[in-house]
Amino acid sequence: MSLLVEKTSSGREYKVKDMSQADFGRLEIELAEVEMPGLMACRTEFGPSQPFKGAKITGSLHMTIQTAVLIETLTALGAEVRWCSCNIFSTQDHAAAAIARDSASVFAWKGETLQEYWWCTERALDWGPGGGPDLIVDDGGDATLLIHEGVKAEEEYAKTGKLPDPSSTDNAEFQIVLTIIRDGLKADPMKYHKMKDRLVGVSEETTTGVKRLYQMQAAGTLLFPAINVNDSVTKSKFDNLYGCRHSLPDGLMRATDVMIAGKVAVVCGYGDVGKGCAAALKQAGARVIVTEIDPICALQALMEGIPVLTLEDVLAEADIFVTTTGNKDIIMVDHMRKMKNNAIVCNIGHFDNEIDMHGLEILPGVKRITIKPQTDRWVFPDTNSGVIVLAEGRLMNLGCATGHPSFVMSCSFTNQVIAQLELWKEKGTGKYEKKVYVLPKHLDEKVAALHLGKLGAKLTKLTSEQAAYISVPVEGPYKPAHYRY
Amino acid sequence: MSLLVEKTSSGREYKVKDMSQADFGRLEIELAEVEMPGLMACRTEFGPSQPFKGAKITGSLHMTIQTAVLIETLTALGAEVRWCSCNIFSTQDHAAAAIARDSASVFAWKGETLQEYWWCTERALDWGPGGGPDLIVDDGGDATLLIHEGVKAEEEYAKTGKLPDPSSTDNAEFQIVLTIIRDGLKADPMKYHKMKDRLVGVSEETTTGVKRLYQMQAAGTLLFPAINVNDSVTKSKFDNLYGCRHSLPDGLMRATDVMIAGKVAVVCGYGDVGKGCAAALKQAGARVIVTEIDPICALQALMEGIPVLTLEDVLAEADIFVTTTGNKDIIMVDHMRKMKNNAIVCNIGHFDNEIDMHGLEILPGVKRITIKPQTDRWVFPDTNSGVIVLAEGRLMNLGCATGHPSFVMSCSFTNQVIAQLELWKEKGTGKYEKKVYVLPKHLDEKVAALHLGKLGAKLTKLTSEQAAYISVPVEGPYKPAHYRY
Amino acid sequence: MSLLVEKTSSGREYKVKDMSQADFGRLEIELAEVEMPGLMACRTEFGPSQPFKGAKITGSLHMTIQTAVLIETLTALGAEVRWCSCNIFSTQDHAAAAIARDSASVFAWKGETLQEYWWCTERALDWGPGGGPDLIVDDGGDATLLIHEGVKAEEEYAKTGKLPDPSSTDNAEFQIVLTIIRDGLKADPMKYHKMKDRLVGVSEETTTGVKRLYQMQAAGTLLFPAINVNDSVTKSKFDNLYGCRHSLPDGLMRATDVMIAGKVAVVCGYGDVGKGCAAALKQAGARVIVTEIDPICALQALMEGIPVLTLEDVLAEADIFVTTTGNKDIIMVDHMRKMKNNAIVCNIGHFDNEIDMHGLEILPGVKRITIKPQTDRWVFPDTNSGVIVLAEGRLMNLGCATGHPSFVMSCSFTNQVIAQLELWKEKGTGKYEKKVYVLPKHLDEKVAALHLGKLGAKLTKLTSEQAAYISVPVEGPYKPAHYRY
Amino acid sequence: MSLLVEKTSSGREYKVKDMSQADFGRLEIELAEVEMPGLMACRTEFGPSQPFKGAKITGSLHMTIQTAVLIETLTALGAEVRWCSCNIFSTQDHAAAAIARDSASVFAWKGETLQEYWWCTERALDWGPGGGPDLIVDDGGDATLLIHEGVKAEEEYAKTGKLPDPSSTDNAEFQIVLTIIRDGLKADPMKYHKMKDRLVGVSEETTTGVKRLYQMQAAGTLLFPAINVNDSVTKSKFDNLYGCRHSLPDGLMRATDVMIAGKVAVVCGYGDVGKGCAAALKQAGARVIVTEIDPICALQALMEGIPVLTLEDVLAEADIFVTTTGNKDIIMVDHMRKMKNNAIVCNIGHFDNEIDMHGLEILPGVKRITIKPQTDRWVFPDTNSGVIVLAEGRLMNLGCATGHPSFVMSCSFTNQVIAQLELWKEKGTGKYEKKVYVLPKHLDEKVAALHLGKLGAKLTKLTSEQAAYISVPVEGPYKPAHYRY
Repeated sequence: MSLLVEKTSSGREYKVKDMSQADFGRLEIELAEVEMPGLMACRTEFGPSQPFKGAKITGSLHMTIQTAVLIETLTALGAEVRWCSCNIFSTQDHAAAAIARDSASVFAWKGETLQEYWWCTERALDWGPGGGPDLIVDDGGDATLLIHEGVKAEEEYAKTGKLPDPSSTDNAEFQIVLTIIRDGLKADPMKYHKMKDRLVGVSEETTTGVKRLYQMQAAGTLLFPAINVNDSVTKSKFDNLYGCRHSLPDGLMRATDVMIAGKVAVVCGYGDVGKGCAAALKQAGARVIVTEIDPICALQALMEGIPVLTLEDVLAEADIFVTTTGNKDIIMVDHMRKMKNNAIVCNIGHFDNEIDMHGLEILPGVKRITIKPQTDRWVFPDTNSGVIVLAEGRLMNLGCATGHPSFVMSCSFTNQVIAQLELWKEKGTGKYEKKVYVLPKHLDEKVAALHLGKLGAKLTKLTSEQAAYISVPVEGPYKPAHYRY
Repeated sequence: MSLLVEKTSSGREYKVKDMSQADFGRLEIELAEVEMPGLMACRTEFGPSQPFKGAKITGSLHMTIQTAVLIETLTALGAEVRWCSCNIFSTQDHAAAAIARDSASVFAWKGETLQEYWWCTERALDWGPGGGPDLIVDDGGDATLLIHEGVKAEEEYAKTGKLPDPSSTDNAEFQIVLTIIRDGLKADPMKYHKMKDRLVGVSEETTTGVKRLYQMQAAGTLLFPAINVNDSVTKSKFDNLYGCRHSLPDGLMRATDVMIAGKVAVVCGYGDVGKGCAAALKQAGARVIVTEIDPICALQALMEGIPVLTLEDVLAEADIFVTTTGNKDIIMVDHMRKMKNNAIVCNIGHFDNEIDMHGLEILPGVKRITIKPQTDRWVFPDTNSGVIVLAEGRLMNLGCATGHPSFVMSCSFTNQVIAQLELWKEKGTGKYEKKVYVLPKHLDEKVAALHLGKLGAKLTKLTSEQAAYISVPVEGPYKPAHYRY
Repeated sequence: MSLLVEKTSSGREYKVKDMSQADFGRLEIELAEVEMPGLMACRTEFGPSQPFKGAKITGSLHMTIQTAVLIETLTALGAEVRWCSCNIFSTQDHAAAAIARDSASVFAWKGETLQEYWWCTERALDWGPGGGPDLIVDDGGDATLLIHEGVKAEEEYAKTGKLPDPSSTDNAEFQIVLTIIRDGLKADPMKYHKMKDRLVGVSEETTTGVKRLYQMQAAGTLLFPAINVNDSVTKSKFDNLYGCRHSLPDGLMRATDVMIAGKVAVVCGYGDVGKGCAAALKQAGARVIVTEIDPICALQALMEGIPVLTLEDVLAEADIFVTTTGNKDIIMVDHMRKMKNNAIVCNIGHFDNEIDMHGLEILPGVKRITIKPQTDRWVFPDTNSGVIVLAEGRLMNLGCATGHPSFVMSCSFTNQVIAQLELWKEKGTGKYEKKVYVLPKHLDEKVAALHLGKLGAKLTKLTSEQAAYISVPVEGPYKPAHYRY
Repeated sequence: MSLLVEKTSSGREYKVKDMSQADFGRLEIELAEVEMPGLMACRTEFGPSQPFKGAKITGSLHMTIQTAVLIETLTALGAEVRWCSCNIFSTQDHAAAAIARDSASVFAWKGETLQEYWWCTERALDWGPGGGPDLIVDDGGDATLLIHEGVKAEEEYAKTGKLPDPSSTDNAEFQIVLTIIRDGLKADPMKYHKMKDRLVGVSEETTTGVKRLYQMQAAGTLLFPAINVNDSVTKSKFDNLYGCRHSLPDGLMRATDVMIAGKVAVVCGYGDVGKGCAAALKQAGARVIVTEIDPICALQALMEGIPVLTLEDVLAEADIFVTTTGNKDIIMVDHMRKMKNNAIVCNIGHFDNEIDMHGLEILPGVKRITIKPQTDRWVFPDTNSGVIVLAEGRLMNLGCATGHPSFVMSCSFTNQVIAQLELWKEKGTGKYEKKVYVLPKHLDEKVAALHLGKLGAKLTKLTSEQAAYISVPVEGPYKPAHYRY
């Protein structure tokens, strides 16, 4: 795929797989809108006042049908938008086509190389001479990372004249990042400085990206305000939990058609994502085993009838392995060699370093048989037995299926919209410093409330006596900040 | 698609969508073999003695990856095989290609017209001048039906010289059947008589097909022995129940990506299929409602916390409707007009007459918008609201996903193999009359036993004292015939 | 307790623990009536015509609150009734008192010795000089057994003059039976002959009792017609399954207050009772393991995510053991010695020989510590560790709790009433020979239908076209005899 | 019951129902110890150093078997203890007897009047001339309240000479509190001042009690440091959730024997307690409906397939009503009048004002029929239909059953022990001001870790590289403070 930007007849830039899928994408976007009441309510409530008028928003977030509804909510509120995906396999090409044709600049396709991935990210951030972006919608933090690394390199260059050296790192992906920055530096040595100076803030929606932000805040290196959307209750306890409960079996079935009932399944990590995965597998009739480092989460698993063991204990008897930890080096090549023939190994955590893909690739004599895209059987030379790895170790629900369903993404994305509105509204007020913030609880409750009608729910209203008795306002928020839900 | 038979280099006839998918099919067949321990055990146990040597077997059964493993088990045991699908949408084209290339004559592709469907059935039954088939593997009974209707027409023709008249029926599909028979009659007025005279028997695996067989037995019109594989416990209580529990949500997710959690889902019928569907939907977080005619099944639903109401009661509030009854006229066009916008309507029962597709098609002003193959939105003219119908009202798990997973199909198909072996072994003995038989319980238990090892199970052995105490042989069978499991 | 019959002021015989509990019993009977719609519907439908007028009915069935509603349904339909319990621990004394005071002759109390138990059974069968009973309601078959053994002994005596010799058997309980028969023989050498000659039939409701009946039928020794109520769908698939799902955890909690969540629980046997127990334990958060001899039931467990292992595999890690097999010698003393300290061992099958109580009692040095009635800790001398045995190895749901709840017993008992009505109606017609019969399916469906209204259910009605299409009457029955539900 | 303190032979004060039950209590305490690994581990770890040497601890917490193990853990660590129950129905008399005989001063029995209740509380706080207590273990905050009200009254008296006037309030219970304080004031006008001056702090374990503490903190009226044990994860997400999941059905079954399967059950409130109750009822086969004020909790219910409606919507169709809100006036007498005959109404929230017992009692013509203690049928005059109210509206799991099981209470009580140790260790350091604190996360994780071994769990250990990658110490704590589990 040659990396040339294309333009629509109206002159908007894009790069997608196949523009002819735009009609199909539009049909699915229309279906998704019915399932995303929170976003549609935002259009109704805020559309008339065009609060994003003048705002240039860059998004780095899986370019799916659901994201399309998010993008068109942002544009419906007045924003101009450029977008890339935050994972090489997660783009739905018909969604990308529809948005590129109708609404925003999109640089994304399913099955990017890492080189292409970072090219797309850089394109999404580059608003040309007029400058921008004003706001970033991030998922995993790669857009934020590129700016931070860019600024760092520019500072170094200004001080010492030294360009970033890709060969200074072993990490293949980071070599690509440094190359992009180096090439940018040559063209404009203040490119990323101008970006960060203009940036009003970022809203970030994953555990992984948020962790990076808190690390930068702690180190004092965060360059602009950030809203942690991940820790809205209506994100972390919904998207992570119920989203994965839906999309993990979906990915397994589309990739392998394996019968889950009767199988032994190991879920590494019992956080929100792990809880969703374990619940789905258990309900489908698997015997689930959890691995955990945290005694509290371990005890939660036990209370649900799920044994907690180490990976080593269960290598030989399990049929399905899922990593959900957000940590690295969970399933190593030596683990895989001890598994049953055709054991399924997959990851639903944000990054692809939970499974030791590198170790697998460099194992002497290993054979890779691609059953179909995103479904590979890796055969070990000594035993002639193999394991089936999904989505090359990346997010299997996005690589092998279509990610989370619209309804739960409506919760997450309504948080994003509200966070972006808040950042933009307060852009001149100094309310937000270069720190990480969470949304106030009344907005979190509002997101939930916007999703109840679609499901036919009716809330009970407190009387003022009752509200006084439990010391909350009649209209909420109803819980203390530390409440765990 | 022109209806011309093609031939492999070895001269074997076939008609499939795309022979280039054969390699992909072979890879998936190899994966499926690991999941189908019952069939593989049959190859090990019976392969060496080649019990099907000389047998010509015609199959009319969804031409999927799992069926491919069945076909290759039959050929591994010495049979010659011709095959068609029993549903216009249920063929997996890569499976058909692999079998056509490597093992048997296949006439099947995904998305046949009804005309093509019956052409394929007739091709699968036509063994040419050498005669055949000797045995039939049936699913739904269409191969059996064609022979019975053919014989009837030939008798009429012999008596009165009258050819069958397609215009004598309103039923569009039956018109096609009569046309095929009429054309055959002209070529050979004893074609179906020769078939039935040679036929050793049929084994049938669905509730629907079995019902037809018992009706013919009762009417005294059954032309050859039949083994009812459907009522093996290892079929009806596994394939119907656990198979649908797996494949219903799979079909829903692939077709619509709808979030099941939070939705109201109506399951029409609470037999084995309905129980599987209701369990799957409930576990995924839907609020399930069942409709039933049978008070016992209704009480079972209630004991699982599922309300039993009539379809009319819930039209306006439900999001998903699934028919599982095996009966006709369950969801009519007037029902659909009262549903919520984008309500999903689908069928997982054998025939497509559970949903009133005809009424929908002829509704004045109705608009059909095909989102993607097998997923149509039908928009009503008066309200501009629509329903989403899956797989044109046919089996949605086969039309929108890949049907039941390999492991559970291994149970069903091992029953098929054992039934075919039994019919063939007893072909000269008169053991089987022109009646419907079920497999003896010890064979049913054997099928189950062949599937335990794969799941790591260990059975307890009765002592002879214990066996005597409960009056069963130490080696089984362990239950009386009426035992319900 | 001295074994003297007492009399009410109206002259009715009884023997219960404490007549002062009659008011309490009456209050609970009134509550139960609201939960037993099937029995109450029988009173409404049949009460006016007094169909049991003149019938003397003996019942041997757990004398609980629910049974009280059954007894008063029989008397409301005109019968005269004498009753005993069929288990030494299963009587609820307040229920016995209320019935003894108000409605029927009762001989039953919680905590009978075996001697007392058979005295009660003999009292319930002895209608005095007027003769009787006409009908028997049996549970486990002890009333039926006493008559059959009595007749056998009388025949022997008539032929050879030999009285039964209790010392001829090692079985302590059977010694008591022989003693009772011997003593009866001395008083009236035709006592049991007169009984069997008069008897119209028995209806029996447990798997265990039914097995005995079929054995006698096979041996040609059955002395009167029997209706197998156990195998009504509305009995075996409800009482056994849903009843135990309710009453197993109830018994565990009342006896031990143990937290089920997090524990490892072994269920021996995965029939209807085992399925109910396993479901209850799993839902409460235990990790359940099943032991099975039958590969089909084993595969069902696996499909629900429950591993199937042998008892020996799991002795050291399980916390709770439940026997549900209907077989003997399931958990032996040597098993118990290998269990964890304070492992709970209990039985929910009909007889107390599933757990090796005898082996436990005679183990040298074993110490029995009674925590409270029906909850004993048995401490092994070598390890000082112990197991907790519930209800002395007898039905723990009746010994430690109150048995099955009213609603599900209403299903079982409505079958009993309908069976008794059928036997009595046909008493002169010869319709029933000395064989075992099941109730016809339309009556089974009727029992279910009587229980739907209470739960707010609405059935769908077949159209006549639909009924014809699936070849059933519009009004049912809807399923073939072999249907498994 | 005359309110006279008794003394053991060793001179320890007590007042319990029946000292002869002490042996039975001891046996059950020994069983519970095996189920309470956290408390037993505290004895092993801290017992030798006697950290509570010299500490006088007053507890106001349900005097059950589990609490007995807590008390004897405190005494094993060197404390002197006085105890009362925090609910008039929650004492287990055999537990109270065993502790009174063997370990501590107990003032508690099942079925106290409110007058007796506050007498017991006052006795537990009164350490006589030597002064005390040093520490308070509180549940619901009644001990804390008595001291705060006492101090307030003493201040008023010191200023104005005015004694508290019980007739100044309509609240019957508060009249009793004022009377006790008034009588104490007359004897010693500085009694409560002395108490609060000596007090090192309180640890409180319920949502309700904690709410009171935060209100006092906000108002600046809190008189001593408080540790909020309720919001330890190992308390609120275990005891509230899994404890109620166990004890709600236990209470229902013991009180009413009602079959839960098939019933419609309404759970008012979907916090941790409500989540546990709803899960238990759903798993038992009920159709559950939730009422909620909080849109987030409501959306959680919907994601589990549970509809959210208002109480008014479901009055006429539900069979079981459970309040779990921690608020007041949830089910009013007018609601109860519209319920089905024999609908069951119960509360599992801390206080008895969730159900309008007062409105029920004063309804003209209402009839109360006590089925058995804690199970009353209230019959309405106009309809002759009635509702069944459990435990007079108080905590039904403690009133009708035995409260939460030992294992989960071990989690809660290990938090209590650790909190008490912390308060006592820091008594002179000023670390704790007159504020409310939660335990640090590493102690919370420690509590969980102490409970894993009993359930056979094995934790995974982080490598130092992994720990660095996610920025946590290898030994934990593993989660940020805001993590919700």
